Amino acid sequence: MYDILNTINGPQDIKKLEIGQLKQLADETRQALINRISNVGGHKGPNLGIVETTVGLHYVFDSPKDKFVFDVSHQCYPHKILTGRKDAYINPEHFGDVTGYTNPFESEHDFFTVGHTSTSVSLALGLAKARDLRKADENIIAVIGDGSLSGGEALEALDFAGEYNNNLIILVNDNDQSIAENHGGIYKSLKALRESNGTSENNIFKTFGLDYRYLEDGHDTAKLVELFESVKGIDHPVVLHIHTIKGKGLPYAEANREAWHAGGPFNVEDGSPKFTGGNPDTTVFDSLKELLDTNEKAVVLNAGTPMGLGFVQGVREEYAKRGQFVDVGIAEENAVAMSSGIAKNGGTPVFGTFAPFFQRTYDQLSHDIALNNSPATMLVLIPGVYGMNSNTHIALCDIQMFAHIPNFVYFAPTTKEEYEQMFKYATSQKNHPVGIRVLPTFEKTGVKDDTDYSVLTNKVEKQGEGVAIVAVGPLLKMAKKVAEEIEKATGKSITVINPRFVSGIDENLLTSLISNHKAVITIEDGEVMGGYGQNIASFYGNTSMKVINHGISRKFHTDYNPDQLLADHGMSVEKLVAEVKDLL
Amino acid sequence: MYDILNTINGPQDIKKLEIGQLKQLADETRQALINRISNVGGHKGPNLGIVETTVGLHYVFDSPKDKFVFDVSHQCYPHKILTGRKDAYINPEHFGDVTGYTNPFESEHDFFTVGHTSTSVSLALGLAKARDLRKADENIIAVIGDGSLSGGEALEALDFAGEYNNNLIILVNDNDQSIAENHGGIYKSLKALRESNGTSENNIFKTFGLDYRYLEDGHDTAKLVELFESVKGIDHPVVLHIHTIKGKGLPYAEANREAWHAGGPFNVEDGSPKFTGGNPDTTVFDSLKELLDTNEKAVVLNAGTPMGLGFVQGVREEYAKRGQFVDVGIAEENAVAMSSGIAKNGGTPVFGTFAPFFQRTYDQLSHDIALNNSPATMLVLIPGVYGMNSNTHIALCDIQMFAHIPNFVYFAPTTKEEYEQMFKYATSQKNHPVGIRVLPTFEKTGVKDDTDYSVLTNKVEKQGEGVAIVAVGPLLKMAKKVAEEIEKATGKSITVINPRFVSGIDENLLTSLISNHKAVITIEDGEVMGGYGQNIASFYGNTSMKVINHGISRKFHTDYNPDQLLADHGMSVEKLVAEVKDLL
Repeated sequence: MYDILNTINGPQDIKKLEIGQLKQLADETRQALINRISNVGGHKGPNLGIVETTVGLHYVFDSPKDKFVFDVSHQCYPHKILTGRKDAYINPEHFGDVTGYTNPFESEHDFFTVGHTSTSVSLALGLAKARDLRKADENIIAVIGDGSLSGGEALEALDFAGEYNNNLIILVNDNDQSIAENHGGIYKSLKALRESNGTSENNIFKTFGLDYRYLEDGHDTAKLVELFESVKGIDHPVVLHIHTIKGKGLPYAEANREAWHAGGPFNVEDGSPKFTGGNPDTTVFDSLKELLDTNEKAVVLNAGTPMGLGFVQGVREEYAKRGQFVDVGIAEENAVAMSSGIAKNGGTPVFGTFAPFFQRTYDQLSHDIALNNSPATMLVLIPGVYGMNSNTHIALCDIQMFAHIPNFVYFAPTTKEEYEQMFKYATSQKNHPVGIRVLPTFEKTGVKDDTDYSVLTNKVEKQGEGVAIVAVGPLLKMAKKVAEEIEKATGKSITVINPRFVSGIDENLLTSLISNHKAVITIEDGEVMGGYGQNIASFYGNTSMKVINHGISRKFHTDYNPDQLLADHGMSVEKLVAEVKDLL
Repeated sequence: MYDILNTINGPQDIKKLEIGQLKQLADETRQALINRISNVGGHKGPNLGIVETTVGLHYVFDSPKDKFVFDVSHQCYPHKILTGRKDAYINPEHFGDVTGYTNPFESEHDFFTVGHTSTSVSLALGLAKARDLRKADENIIAVIGDGSLSGGEALEALDFAGEYNNNLIILVNDNDQSIAENHGGIYKSLKALRESNGTSENNIFKTFGLDYRYLEDGHDTAKLVELFESVKGIDHPVVLHIHTIKGKGLPYAEANREAWHAGGPFNVEDGSPKFTGGNPDTTVFDSLKELLDTNEKAVVLNAGTPMGLGFVQGVREEYAKRGQFVDVGIAEENAVAMSSGIAKNGGTPVFGTFAPFFQRTYDQLSHDIALNNSPATMLVLIPGVYGMNSNTHIALCDIQMFAHIPNFVYFAPTTKEEYEQMFKYATSQKNHPVGIRVLPTFEKTGVKDDTDYSVLTNKVEKQGEGVAIVAVGPLLKMAKKVAEEIEKATGKSITVINPRFVSGIDENLLTSLISNHKAVITIEDGEVMGGYGQNIASFYGNTSMKVINHGISRKFHTDYNPDQLLADHGMSVEKLVAEVKDLL
């Protein structure tokens, strides 16, 4: 089954093959890839489409002397298979040996840990610049997908590459698709290039001053090798625009490219999922739909990840037609700044994306939105320890980002009803920008929240004495459980507080605690340094109130179990019960 | 002298003029502009170049119904003169009436407070989108300079504009110059367009899918009016590429465009400065020069503001020739990510820019550099209250940004010698990224600092008891003065601590204070929430040590006197002396 692949323990073995054997190697590589993704899931379409390209690259170039940088790095699976890590694809016992992204700790053929888009050309320019300083001569190859081209970091780098004057090979893997459909004018240019075999006027790469080659069949290993040979050792930057098919080799994946971008295990024969279920929580989407249906000046923006907001294809087409849904493509900066403009001219903008990707928009949040006090709403999807748990995608510093930007109100809802009321408040007021932390799922209490969120007040979930626990967002449940256990064990009733607002403190409430509490414990699902709890320690600094702040340590934690990570940082019912008992 | 201008109290008065009078209005507007900038300084070249364009815009369009968004907004002076604010340019008594940027609090003709580059197209897209939602029909005009085009936010927006389908006018004011010379491949395209009267192949704007018009003489009011008339009410996005001369009207400014970008008052007859002096501190440049001259794999990067690092034209040309100086243009994201690549491939990168502009690079600092633990050095120029004091350029949250990103070490030097030793440490180690806060000037102590900065330790500047003051960076002097006054007044000696590291605390030292101190006061030059001092309050939270955190409140403070702002937040020698006395 893996006649050739079994002999490949690294790029050096690929070079021993006849060029005519490369197609078979590609087929076997795809087989190994399908073996893994059908059993454990992962990124599917991007990797299926880049198999032949990767075989060609390793046949021609000399990794690790020559250096590849994979954008987002979610299309690095064939690269991993061909660089000594095939067991993790073929043998179920070794599935756990590799991450889903390039990883320098796994292999000398990987140079960066990467999981955000649009970084490869900049990183490659850096490698190239250092090569020049070392007076060395390796090839530097950035591999970027068409979906990533619209990101500011990529565009800045392409522009700069246009005046760089030494070897740099930018391979554009054009499969005519981002996670969802592509957006932006660039894609019209790419389409024109594809349809003209690379000869159309107004070539986006040439306008940046870059040399350019086009290859129509990105699955023809012989032609790929020929192309790569022609640029090996080139003395200036060149773009190789290669047309591939996302999901190549699995008919159902080729037919439905968005659904097959990434996901869980599936049955190879028909593509049906091995496990069903998934997240049935439609809280976010339902609120957005209600807003759009009742306020014709409201608009939902997103940046290339519409599914995060629950906007499936048909639905987003419908709202896009009404002008109320906008996908800007991978271009978070533009989405956030546009939101400010919309708010300033009478519209009601809501932008949402995953928490780590908001990192790209810090300046736009601060300068474009907050400085202008534009009433825009930012939905920060799954921040904190219960969000994505790869170090490439963690977001444990969302409070550090949002809470300290003046004018922003940053909410941490704990239930579906709180989220709904906060969202309603955010999108109906005109006084300031709002960010809302969106949990993976919101529990429904059945009791409508009618809080007036124009005034910063914390909610006392349970009134007691002696010790108060202030619990941010998803940790409120843990605090309530601790209070129950304490009551059971000691008969004493402690206080539990849900701050709801994490961009400031409720001074009146905190002052009132002094009379009958001796300690406040804070627990939060993000980094402790610069987080919410430290505000409370600071507030009580000059009083006799004891404060204990719990939160996650300052580290790129990865592949953790969230409850275990919390426990490791003092946040479990058991540990907190013991701590409270000591304090009482 | 101002025969026509005196009659202009708003755009409505411009429309009453004959088209033949516009040239005179432009000349008088330029006269008023020169009157102000020669007396109080400000942005010079950008405004001198855009006088005729602005006259034409207000003659044709109907502000404020039609809406202008000025990029960076440092070329809005003629717009201010023509929209009811001419007194602030003509009459010295009213010089103080206006800020240097667009300001919605000044005029209904201004829509955003803006001071960072590359935002206008995104903001304008937002205004346009909201117009569509309101089913209104005003023109939306973004005015962007060529220097701003290379920024990611602008490129993302141009790309998105390419698929937007209603009125949007993007005026590219091309004066062939950023603050310093332009960088990036785009500028080759712009040059080709200028040289071909807008007809050259590979038109950067057309590749984004945008309609395009070129005007060679951007100082011909009649032609400008004709161009604007031709696009007023247009039903799709269009780029107006207008060639202007930076510094137009002042021969010395036209001849030396970099020096005349912005600056202080000058004598109109010859351009000589009215005040000499300026910052003689060459600490940063000297350290960089020594690094480059002793380490051939070292490279200094900057993003369009080389003067901030002291790299004047001749010097940067020399180091650029050696491959050791890189100006990426306005493209901070690319510069930071490139630094990571350089560090990973054997180079020693140092990137520096002004503190507020680092906001653009939060994701690159975290994901591209810190996640990969790349030993790159970031020079954060003039953060805190002693930095730029316009709300468009303040940077009171640099600690909130840098200190919480894992792996980063963030230094706050207080003297020239400390800076030098920290910089030497940063650029000679290979273990982690480093950020250094660069003060406007560093005081020289004459005593070499030989601290080993690989270990996080605070420096006890003065050992005392009872009360300790922990003072960040430039506030150390204040703390020392407080200790002196206390000693004078009470005979008691208090402790003064210089943390040096603001990305973590010195637990050993803080623990040792417990035995003979009852209170710790922290003072810092940035926002108190999420800042350095709160770490200390948190550390002592469960002890009997009192902690008082002083820092700036969470607000977009503007046009302040730094010492007054500090005093307003409890940080003056007088207030601290009183506070310490109370505690003792």
